[in-house]
Amino acid sequence: MSKFIIAIDLGGTSAKMGVLNDNAEIIDRWSVETDISQEGTLIVPNIIQSIQGFLNRENISIDDIKGIGLGTPGTINHEEGTVVSAYNLNWRTVQHVRDQFQEAFPVPFFMDNDANVAALGEQWQGAGEQADNVVMVTLGTGVGGGVVIDGQLVHGINQAAGEIGHMTIEFHDPIDCTCGKKGCLETVASATGAVNLATKHINDFGGQSELKSMVERGDEVSAYSIFQKAEEDQDEYALYIVDLYVDYLGRAFSHIANTLNPANIIIGGGVSGSGEFLRSRVEKYFKEYSFSQIRETSKVVIAKLGNDAGMFGAAQIVNNGLNK
Amino acid sequence: MSKFIIAIDLGGTSAKMGVLNDNAEIIDRWSVETDISQEGTLIVPNIIQSIQGFLNRENISIDDIKGIGLGTPGTINHEEGTVVSAYNLNWRTVQHVRDQFQEAFPVPFFMDNDANVAALGEQWQGAGEQADNVVMVTLGTGVGGGVVIDGQLVHGINQAAGEIGHMTIEFHDPIDCTCGKKGCLETVASATGAVNLATKHINDFGGQSELKSMVERGDEVSAYSIFQKAEEDQDEYALYIVDLYVDYLGRAFSHIANTLNPANIIIGGGVSGSGEFLRSRVEKYFKEYSFSQIRETSKVVIAKLGNDAGMFGAAQIVNNGLNK
Repeated sequence: MSKFIIAIDLGGTSAKMGVLNDNAEIIDRWSVETDISQEGTLIVPNIIQSIQGFLNRENISIDDIKGIGLGTPGTINHEEGTVVSAYNLNWRTVQHVRDQFQEAFPVPFFMDNDANVAALGEQWQGAGEQADNVVMVTLGTGVGGGVVIDGQLVHGINQAAGEIGHMTIEFHDPIDCTCGKKGCLETVASATGAVNLATKHINDFGGQSELKSMVERGDEVSAYSIFQKAEEDQDEYALYIVDLYVDYLGRAFSHIANTLNPANIIIGGGVSGSGEFLRSRVEKYFKEYSFSQIRETSKVVIAKLGNDAGMFGAAQIVNNGLNK
Repeated sequence: MSKFIIAIDLGGTSAKMGVLNDNAEIIDRWSVETDISQEGTLIVPNIIQSIQGFLNRENISIDDIKGIGLGTPGTINHEEGTVVSAYNLNWRTVQHVRDQFQEAFPVPFFMDNDANVAALGEQWQGAGEQADNVVMVTLGTGVGGGVVIDGQLVHGINQAAGEIGHMTIEFHDPIDCTCGKKGCLETVASATGAVNLATKHINDFGGQSELKSMVERGDEVSAYSIFQKAEEDQDEYALYIVDLYVDYLGRAFSHIANTLNPANIIIGGGVSGSGEFLRSRVEKYFKEYSFSQIRETSKVVIAKLGNDAGMFGAAQIVNNGLNK
């Protein structure tokens, strides 16, 4: 008598829905557009309607659903079941998300922040290999993070655990961060951060370089082009910038590991597309800065699930919630 | 029908024993000398004999004991119930500690590393105020640490969680650490680290200072005297060194908090005797380097239990173990 989990990965463009069986297989999936009009008040009703339609169409009884899990942007109040400050959903005021789901479906409902949920997804079905303790660091426009200890997400006293992107990592000549601090990891190790470094260090490098010329001319430069020029063209300035970039990441990873000695630190997000080229270079600095018993055991790995991390994580918060 | 816990805090000089009731009160306590002769093989038998003597003398049945907890130096193998590398106990080879206790007493036995146990003790009955997530940093000859998440100690994949003392904290002009790395927190923020700083920065300071004169003359200087001269005499070089010291600690604390957002980061160990003078200065830098949502909620506090932290923690690992 197998039961299903409905997992929802809510983003600013679409809400991706999936049905998982007890073997953690996604046996069905669909999505609905995220309509952020009317201050985002249509988002949850649209998701609910879409799930009801799915259940009717597939002739699945609600009794076959053991729970619904949602990963969402924004700040979550777990006690109240509410979400606030999800700006890409137009949710500026408190949204009573759990109440709406529980009114529609008489099954357990769980939700968590999207960065956390992705970390849990990778821990459960991806590069975390179900190890008890795993930390994920997501390198995108910003730097996000999620911490899993004993198979459970760590939230912290103010839901701010995993704010790896705002770890202060440069003290001598820091770049201002959008958060109000300066020298945050995000200013040097996000996609934006790579570009910041290429601009900031332009006068440190005397050699010939296509990348350097591009920056000097004011051409548009991206993290992708910096990593591509480093790996494929062996552009010396690009290699220099990548070396600074991975040094900063190695510092942050060593701080995490010297505190938690996790089985894996997982690199996710767009920049992780550089794969082994990135991983091996981060690992080099990570090992240099980590305690001997830690560098031999905590591994630096690349995320495996891509966009599905959020859906797997949304399912696993249901499992974790039901087992508590 | 209340039951008791026997808690043991084993150190290189003595093993302190305590009996705790269900209200977490130490209702009896005694100690035995740690005899490290014969490669430390007498240590556990002596403790066992002492506990048996206590039970007989007080006419307490073993049925009234719900468990025995031990905090010990060294590296613990939790699966095997063994301890190794406890050099101050003369335990160079693997010691089958759990087997010996379980042969003598037919009750559950739990043990953990002494730094971890002290952190759990403070979390449970001290400055941690039973918050779910607490980190303790102990400033003694070295810098130790313990991480409590969801009320449980975090061990890490290789028992090396909480190695805060070996977080790399100085990258530009690092001091060599006994661990083989350089720039570790321990080289600048232990009692030894304070003295290292007073020596290293002697030429950075041009003013008049008793401390500076002492260092120049080669007089013996201690962390205690540096903090005393800073606080009581307002010695300018001592204040300068303290400012460097607390800046490093603030960095480490912010790295921990940006990862875990714990309720409390507890400062313990000998240097914590400086109390509010130390705490407020660490807090200043901690807040400067921490994400806004974290600096408003994660608190820097001074340990409360002193030498009893280990005994309370040894008792709490019994409670945690029995509730698992």
